[in-house]
Amino acid sequence: MKAYRIAALAVAASLMSALAYAQAKPEQQIEYRQSAMTVTARSVGVLSAMAKGDIPFNKDVAQQHAALIASISDLPLTAGAFGPGTDKGAPTKADPKVWSEADKFKAGYDKFIQAAKAMPAAAVDQKSLQAALGNLGKTCKGCHDDYRQK
Amino acid sequence: MKAYRIAALAVAASLMSALAYAQAKPEQQIEYRQSAMTVTARSVGVLSAMAKGDIPFNKDVAQQHAALIASISDLPLTAGAFGPGTDKGAPTKADPKVWSEADKFKAGYDKFIQAAKAMPAAAVDQKSLQAALGNLGKTCKGCHDDYRQK
Repeated sequence: MKAYRIAALAVAASLMSALAYAQAKPEQQIEYRQSAMTVTARSVGVLSAMAKGDIPFNKDVAQQHAALIASISDLPLTAGAFGPGTDKGAPTKADPKVWSEADKFKAGYDKFIQAAKAMPAAAVDQKSLQAALGNLGKTCKGCHDDYRQK
Repeated sequence: MKAYRIAALAVAASLMSALAYAQAKPEQQIEYRQSAMTVTARSVGVLSAMAKGDIPFNKDVAQQHAALIASISDLPLTAGAFGPGTDKGAPTKADPKVWSEADKFKAGYDKFIQAAKAMPAAAVDQKSLQAALGNLGKTCKGCHDDYRQK
């Protein structure tokens, strides 16, 4: 338990270092989070097409897109994309609640990260992919409903 | 040898399926490739800061960014980002040579992909990271010099 807490503290400290480094300007943080969403959406789209049978399931391609979704999922939170003051600075659909309800926003994001990290293990056949994408989709919708403006 | 060729053909066929699916509009392809570059650049920036000692080397954070660079590296080529007719449709710095010298462009991109895929194994200590980033940087510069307009 003690070892776990020390490890957790070390990770938190390191993330703060990365954050401190990545004190990108508001417009850069907005561009970064929008870019992360754009690349994630494309990969979700390809996997959804495979899950629905619109294109043939192909494990190699599925693994590529699943790896992208998993690896990018937490970076907007840890690498500086929703920092203080980034509710403006460039056109953004992020709702002010992202910052006024920061804990709740982070809790929703964490659910997405968990579902995203499960994608590589699931992208091995069409049936597993369907189930994992269903879970992932719920976490996308959860945050978009509450924190993305129309 | 024969098995290898059959496997290569299967991969090529599957990539074409993904490409056929991902016949995104020119402006979507341009947005996708620019987004991929934006997220890659951020991760390269964090790793460079660690390699230079501007921030402490942290293996967990380094692994996150290395995984992103590796997993996104080939998607712009395979998921539809430099398709025919995407030299226009939205503001872009891509040089027309991307399409007029397609084979040479792809050969340069393949060098980047190879260096990118080597990042996770190298992001284990500062020294290995420095060497791998040096290789990666050369492949970035190679394409940017030739195929990105000022």
